[in-house]
Amino acid sequence: MSNKINNVACIGCGTIGAGWVTRFLVNQIKVKIYDPTPYAETRLEIVIKNTKRAYKNFFPNKTINFKNFEYFNEISPAIENADLIIESVPERLDIKQKIFENIEEFCSKQTIIASSTSGIKPTDLQNEMKNPERLMVTHPFNPVYLIPLVEVVGGNKTEYKFIKKIIDFFNSINMKPIHLKKEIEAFVADRLLEAIWRESLWLIKDGICTTSELDDIVRYGFGLRYAQMGVFQTYRTAAGEGGMRKFLEHFGPCLTWPWTKLMDVPEFNDELIDLITNQSDQQANGLSVTKLEQIRDKNLVEIQKALEKNNYGAGRLIKKARVKKSP
Amino acid sequence: MSNKINNVACIGCGTIGAGWVTRFLVNQIKVKIYDPTPYAETRLEIVIKNTKRAYKNFFPNKTINFKNFEYFNEISPAIENADLIIESVPERLDIKQKIFENIEEFCSKQTIIASSTSGIKPTDLQNEMKNPERLMVTHPFNPVYLIPLVEVVGGNKTEYKFIKKIIDFFNSINMKPIHLKKEIEAFVADRLLEAIWRESLWLIKDGICTTSELDDIVRYGFGLRYAQMGVFQTYRTAAGEGGMRKFLEHFGPCLTWPWTKLMDVPEFNDELIDLITNQSDQQANGLSVTKLEQIRDKNLVEIQKALEKNNYGAGRLIKKARVKKSP
Repeated sequence: MSNKINNVACIGCGTIGAGWVTRFLVNQIKVKIYDPTPYAETRLEIVIKNTKRAYKNFFPNKTINFKNFEYFNEISPAIENADLIIESVPERLDIKQKIFENIEEFCSKQTIIASSTSGIKPTDLQNEMKNPERLMVTHPFNPVYLIPLVEVVGGNKTEYKFIKKIIDFFNSINMKPIHLKKEIEAFVADRLLEAIWRESLWLIKDGICTTSELDDIVRYGFGLRYAQMGVFQTYRTAAGEGGMRKFLEHFGPCLTWPWTKLMDVPEFNDELIDLITNQSDQQANGLSVTKLEQIRDKNLVEIQKALEKNNYGAGRLIKKARVKKSP
Repeated sequence: MSNKINNVACIGCGTIGAGWVTRFLVNQIKVKIYDPTPYAETRLEIVIKNTKRAYKNFFPNKTINFKNFEYFNEISPAIENADLIIESVPERLDIKQKIFENIEEFCSKQTIIASSTSGIKPTDLQNEMKNPERLMVTHPFNPVYLIPLVEVVGGNKTEYKFIKKIIDFFNSINMKPIHLKKEIEAFVADRLLEAIWRESLWLIKDGICTTSELDDIVRYGFGLRYAQMGVFQTYRTAAGEGGMRKFLEHFGPCLTWPWTKLMDVPEFNDELIDLITNQSDQQANGLSVTKLEQIRDKNLVEIQKALEKNNYGAGRLIKKARVKKSP
């Protein structure tokens, strides 16, 4: 097996698939694409436009060929000779299994098949495959061309050599692969996001705050800490000289304080959907999603450039990318 | 009642109290301090040093008098003539109530008494006060001199004119006050943090990831989004043209997927404390808390300067502060 990944195919080109495509393009990797849905090509054009804008700000002196891809109407020519196939089709096990069946007919046994699923366990995905040892989850985050994190998760039958190869590859394209040694549904990031989301729904439903106030509480508060240190290192820093042990002993008991009642799941009825939708509309203040995407990307670039100044966290990847010579 | 807050007293000068002190100092507000504990003055010196370093980077041309405070050994001279008294003593209702009893003996009925509590409801705090109408919670975030958010919460007996006055005051010192209209234990930010924390403990306990991997998953992933847009606006942006309603209808059912079993509280025993403490020690890689604080502050400054470039979120406050004329 060659150690290099040169030929990449993207199966499914929605928001996530298109984000993978441009992540590869800005790293001088040619991409073959298969997506039979009518809206896919238009979506890709928008994502290319967004990526162009963002990378002009990130790396003003870098020349990027944004036409370095081919679009196919059938799956077989798209995956021919591929070293890596990234699947980003809808989140249903049966749809994904069907795609894997198709793929396995036309590609080598050495080709890595990586699923972008945000919730399904790799052991379930690989269950009916002929060569399940090269199947794994590589769960990215929106927008894929700007958020470096990718969760890498193997199933029961996945062989480590394939995991190792994809981790090296992701490192080479300035992503941050985190290999989870145990698989659980939804992996790690979405577990945390789900916990916050559940609590957020209660807070809105109970009228404690509005969506706009909640967002302000995050982005003017702990969001500024999470962008750099995450959960544990932040608390370690706040713990003072007593260290993590003292912090844990001090705050541990809080877990059983009265607000744990909020661990129930709120009923997701029309009333709650209306409440959130209306508050969110008001909060967006007329900004279209296209405009919001541009704002988000501009901020993601500047925040990472800021961390680059301190050679810290996500900024280290940018610094590394900047000094790396072109191939 | 005068509309201006000129004289501020800080009762309790630990990490949070000292953070309040320097937040006031950088805004040219003189502070009187009362804290009888032996370590308080040393702690304040460290916080002043950290604040100096951070603000030199934030506002290089600004002259700040970091000696504009007085330290008292008794409570009465510290609060004499105060327009605002900020209480940051340990998180116990009985201790806080005792302090309020002392305070009320020596200050005017018009003096605002604001508690930094991160969990106790203002209605409980004001329960035994002579003039409970001027008591409220103003919950800040560590480090107070760099994180703009402050949750403002009144109790049953709090009068709105006092809330209004303190909100105007916080705005004038470049903070972001969010007024919560209903009180609940732990307010909003700490509810969200508690939800993440609970889930994090499970993930570590179950061996899904280490503290270092979890932190990387946050800071290379959604932390970069939270620093600018928060929870709802981020999802709105990701939702695409279908808008928030489509997003909710699509993802709502996930709430009852299998991982909701993780809503239980993990047992906080020695084994879990050891596991987290050891992983956190390894992650810190020999960096002292003092060093970690410096790193955190440097990043907080750069991230907010980055957002300032785009005049967005927390960066708007910095931009506003920069153009504001000295008094």
